[in-house]
Amino acid sequence: MTNKVITISRQFGSGGRTIGKEVAKRLGIPYYDKELVDRVAKESGFSHEFIEEIGEYASVTSSFLFNIAVSSHPMGLIDTMSVSDKLYVCQTNVIRDLANQGPCVIVGRCADYILRGRPDVLDIFIHADYEHRAARVLERYGETNQPLKRRLQEKDSKRKVYYKHYTNQNWGEAQNYHLCLNSGLIGVDKCVDIICDIAEMP
Amino acid sequence: MTNKVITISRQFGSGGRTIGKEVAKRLGIPYYDKELVDRVAKESGFSHEFIEEIGEYASVTSSFLFNIAVSSHPMGLIDTMSVSDKLYVCQTNVIRDLANQGPCVIVGRCADYILRGRPDVLDIFIHADYEHRAARVLERYGETNQPLKRRLQEKDSKRKVYYKHYTNQNWGEAQNYHLCLNSGLIGVDKCVDIICDIAEMP
Repeated sequence: MTNKVITISRQFGSGGRTIGKEVAKRLGIPYYDKELVDRVAKESGFSHEFIEEIGEYASVTSSFLFNIAVSSHPMGLIDTMSVSDKLYVCQTNVIRDLANQGPCVIVGRCADYILRGRPDVLDIFIHADYEHRAARVLERYGETNQPLKRRLQEKDSKRKVYYKHYTNQNWGEAQNYHLCLNSGLIGVDKCVDIICDIAEMP
Repeated sequence: MTNKVITISRQFGSGGRTIGKEVAKRLGIPYYDKELVDRVAKESGFSHEFIEEIGEYASVTSSFLFNIAVSSHPMGLIDTMSVSDKLYVCQTNVIRDLANQGPCVIVGRCADYILRGRPDVLDIFIHADYEHRAARVLERYGETNQPLKRRLQEKDSKRKVYYKHYTNQNWGEAQNYHLCLNSGLIGVDKCVDIICDIAEMP
């Protein structure tokens, strides 16, 4: 396999993260998720929680989060760039650096768009029908006060808005990815097989 | 394989038709394209040319085609339904009939939407980047007076409008299909392998 970078975008509850981890393990390459957040935190000065909350979910930061973020940010209010934009720029740099280090799997955070034009990138989108996602979310994260359907819709809607804002492309539109898989019908294991199979093509 | 019906939607020049034919051959099941047009022609009274021109490309029929179609249509002007709508209704009935006959491959014509909700249907979307599609169209259909880029855009745009009009869904949106493949990167043969592999899952 020549220096292959695999980006995985996913609907909430579709098992995209699990698939990404398993693909990385099977191919013996790094899987960047927590480490990516660590790097972004170190380079931006933002907290882990803030990066996880804002890093792929909102194009416009709420004034509450904005205040917390700015008050704890080393650059203070000097820079006029929005907090969300600063975070995006920092994530972009970290993602490019990680991809330059060699084969890896990167989940979410517009990595497909950030690495566009590179001939060594394989872009994947994982989705599933409501029933499969609801069952998965319930099993993994349990119940909350918010109805399940609303949680799924809200999370995906935020990812969609964030992606559109920074890429001017439509999140989940097939032509933005090399391979889109319905993990509900195909199954997580088979999705891993197919991705590894394509990644290992000469 | 349990009674599996495979629908293939595709960008113009992506090789979707070739992939559909090969999948049908490999699985030993019928491939409906010309035969579907024959059946629709027989049941609607419209000509083959008209069905091929309008059957998946336009939601609003031009007055010129409308006049030709109506003048040769056995029902004349009695019915107030538009020509495009009549054709869609007829195609819907034929597609449902064919799917009820057993496993098969059906290309285009909103078959994914028409057969939605059936547990035995596998919906595929084939696309590719501009360079691959342009090369394929040039090789298959040769040059015309219209620039290649314009031909590709126009054909896809018409399919998109037609699909949106009759399904209220977005053509090429990953979540409407079980599997979306970039045939340019993955290659036609590998696409066939992957589709057959999934179709043959228990």
